[in-house]
Amino acid sequence: MADAVYAGSFDPITNGHVAIIRAGLVAFDRIIVAVLTNTSKQPLFSVDERIEMITHALEGDPRVEVDRFDRGLLVDYARSKGVNVLLRGLRAAGDFEYELQMANMNSHLNPSVQTVFIGANDYFFVSSTLIKEIASLGGNLGGVVPRCVEEKLRATFGP
Amino acid sequence: MADAVYAGSFDPITNGHVAIIRAGLVAFDRIIVAVLTNTSKQPLFSVDERIEMITHALEGDPRVEVDRFDRGLLVDYARSKGVNVLLRGLRAAGDFEYELQMANMNSHLNPSVQTVFIGANDYFFVSSTLIKEIASLGGNLGGVVPRCVEEKLRATFGP
Amino acid sequence: MADAVYAGSFDPITNGHVAIIRAGLVAFDRIIVAVLTNTSKQPLFSVDERIEMITHALEGDPRVEVDRFDRGLLVDYARSKGVNVLLRGLRAAGDFEYELQMANMNSHLNPSVQTVFIGANDYFFVSSTLIKEIASLGGNLGGVVPRCVEEKLRATFGP
Amino acid sequence: MADAVYAGSFDPITNGHVAIIRAGLVAFDRIIVAVLTNTSKQPLFSVDERIEMITHALEGDPRVEVDRFDRGLLVDYARSKGVNVLLRGLRAAGDFEYELQMANMNSHLNPSVQTVFIGANDYFFVSSTLIKEIASLGGNLGGVVPRCVEEKLRATFGP
Amino acid sequence: MADAVYAGSFDPITNGHVAIIRAGLVAFDRIIVAVLTNTSKQPLFSVDERIEMITHALEGDPRVEVDRFDRGLLVDYARSKGVNVLLRGLRAAGDFEYELQMANMNSHLNPSVQTVFIGANDYFFVSSTLIKEIASLGGNLGGVVPRCVEEKLRATFGP
Amino acid sequence: MADAVYAGSFDPITNGHVAIIRAGLVAFDRIIVAVLTNTSKQPLFSVDERIEMITHALEGDPRVEVDRFDRGLLVDYARSKGVNVLLRGLRAAGDFEYELQMANMNSHLNPSVQTVFIGANDYFFVSSTLIKEIASLGGNLGGVVPRCVEEKLRATFGP
Repeated sequence: MADAVYAGSFDPITNGHVAIIRAGLVAFDRIIVAVLTNTSKQPLFSVDERIEMITHALEGDPRVEVDRFDRGLLVDYARSKGVNVLLRGLRAAGDFEYELQMANMNSHLNPSVQTVFIGANDYFFVSSTLIKEIASLGGNLGGVVPRCVEEKLRATFGP
Repeated sequence: MADAVYAGSFDPITNGHVAIIRAGLVAFDRIIVAVLTNTSKQPLFSVDERIEMITHALEGDPRVEVDRFDRGLLVDYARSKGVNVLLRGLRAAGDFEYELQMANMNSHLNPSVQTVFIGANDYFFVSSTLIKEIASLGGNLGGVVPRCVEEKLRATFGP
Repeated sequence: MADAVYAGSFDPITNGHVAIIRAGLVAFDRIIVAVLTNTSKQPLFSVDERIEMITHALEGDPRVEVDRFDRGLLVDYARSKGVNVLLRGLRAAGDFEYELQMANMNSHLNPSVQTVFIGANDYFFVSSTLIKEIASLGGNLGGVVPRCVEEKLRATFGP
Repeated sequence: MADAVYAGSFDPITNGHVAIIRAGLVAFDRIIVAVLTNTSKQPLFSVDERIEMITHALEGDPRVEVDRFDRGLLVDYARSKGVNVLLRGLRAAGDFEYELQMANMNSHLNPSVQTVFIGANDYFFVSSTLIKEIASLGGNLGGVVPRCVEEKLRATFGP
Repeated sequence: MADAVYAGSFDPITNGHVAIIRAGLVAFDRIIVAVLTNTSKQPLFSVDERIEMITHALEGDPRVEVDRFDRGLLVDYARSKGVNVLLRGLRAAGDFEYELQMANMNSHLNPSVQTVFIGANDYFFVSSTLIKEIASLGGNLGGVVPRCVEEKLRATFGP
Repeated sequence: MADAVYAGSFDPITNGHVAIIRAGLVAFDRIIVAVLTNTSKQPLFSVDERIEMITHALEGDPRVEVDRFDRGLLVDYARSKGVNVLLRGLRAAGDFEYELQMANMNSHLNPSVQTVFIGANDYFFVSSTLIKEIASLGGNLGGVVPRCVEEKLRATFGP
């Protein structure tokens, strides 16, 4: 099977991300989870913390490689890893339009790279941004983030 | 790489379908194009004609198998072919919602089968239904359907 | 609390409908489930069968009244029952646009009647039409329709 | 100013259509309202009745020509009238996707013809199909269709 | 009838908000309008000014309570007021997706709280952000905000 | 034919903008491209640079006037130029909802001004924001921006 790159901020990883990765492993041999280190928003967790949480959440599945993606075009990063497939999750119709625009732009930048989408299901209402907001207000995140993320958020914001 | 099933009526195949199949071959080793024989709408072309046009349009690419899918659940058909991936094209946000509902239902029916989506690009405005309507009115379909389909439509509706 | 009318074909009732009704009972004292008897599509089940399945699925909750709605405007029906609220479930953004048009038209027809919406959640991928199609193909509907509907579908289409 | 063709079934014309035509007359010198005579659905009113209602609703505005469009491609019809602009109303995001597909297909069929859109506003909830359904149930259509259409519907369905 | 909480920044209240509240009073006995005091955006008006404008706009309707919501989860606030229903207005399909995600997250945080939606109608094009932008440019806001808000904006930005 | 105002930041102009302008010239005699000088985001290029690139990209088409729009309401600017039509491009269904809200607000502010939309086609995946991001990462923009913009971006970000 082909490999795929699944890139994002993962600040932090949620059960929605985990579900996309597990679904992706039905279709792809190996998935490289690439943590974007360089985003416009100030992250809550350091890159190392984010990588540690992802690794923990996936319980060391040998088909998953966790990597950092520091700078440059995602299509170039994927090619540098020998991968032709970008995996993206879709939560809503609004996502789809933005994602389709990105997929077409990436395909313009490198026609040998293909974006494939997997639809979110039970976790369609979960986003990292919302998770952080709820954690800061003391809300219960059981069931929507991995256990290790729940603990990390509690250590950050207090019980 | 994994194999994928790409099912549809293909009445007739368009350049939009061909683009999805070619994009899918970046991600998957082999694609089974499954012609639904049993749909509520009365087809214009027989199953054999549709299979012949698909085969012709893909110029005998050995990574593509053209098959017929007569009856039953698509997830059962895929499993009977040893395939775990359903490939779907998306043209618009409205498509996405319907497709996400189908993907979730299929995943409910057989959790080991995963639906992956590829976004249409240059041919997002092409559908088989529209093609038939335009052909019946004598419109020029050059560039939106394969050459063999263009000829077949002209033979059907007159020049 | 106010009462609300929840109208539909319910051919058959699904767990998605049941979830909307249960959610509606948080907001409203009593919900009248009104079975439309007079739709353009040929129903699979008779009105009596549909009413029986709804009643069974809701286990005789005294806050739910199951009724038939034979003819006329829905706003007139609601007013004839002394009710000012129409309850609708929303599964997708596409639903919303159609529903908003209906809500505005109903509000034009009778300004004292108000439509309120509740979003589907775990059952967003379930529709009566899809249920019937899957049942006819022998698919497993456990978990997406009430037990009594599952049995009725199996009796209709065979195991 | 350019002329534009505004095509549709107009079975019957609604205040939503009238608003699009009036808005279009801000941008275009003359609008040809083209009644499609040949649609898959069985119309309620004859082509002559529909033309009469449109003419009446627009009160003989000399900038509006009411015509019938019997057969062929809409782009060919427009060109036969010496017109390069197709005017379309948009009621909802879902409309937009379908309309964008049609606009691109028409632009493929004849690149010298351009589709322009005007957004519906106060009448976004009005469609001819809904109008007929409500009229058949005795609902009050004051304010959503022109007076002459209201009378015609009452004559058809009874008071 | 049940009570409902309608939360927002209301910076300032618009006729769109007023219409949702009035529509909500058809379905609910009492509506608590909860002003979020603690948002990421710098508000134009102080909490006290916003509360005063809301109170004025609703002309002291005894079924409306205007309150401030300082900190914590909205579901906890609602429960602290003894309310199980969150009321939300929907202007567009894009709104709906975001709102559905929030509703599901709130329902995850407290399953006994239910979100219900009411669709905007004549004021679907009005938002507080747009109102402030137009007021700062001297545009006429008659008809889209309550009279007291119009005066307050004029006092702030000049005539 | 009428004139139309096509306003935006154009920071920088893309082939998507050029396609909308060329399509607009099928429907309108003259198009005033109005560069917004006063936006919340810090622009990459000065107003003079943006105007120069637009002029260059349109190769001095005499039907196009490039202007700057410094302050005030867009409807007032249009009227000051003697123009009643605002031209807008639409890329996606999500765009449409926002644009429809703006069109209705502008129509509220000045009922004699009408917004008309043209759908993006081959360039639907291009936005100025994305262009700048890709240029900063060294991506190839051939085919998605005019030649003069490509050179300017390379001079800005390096080869």
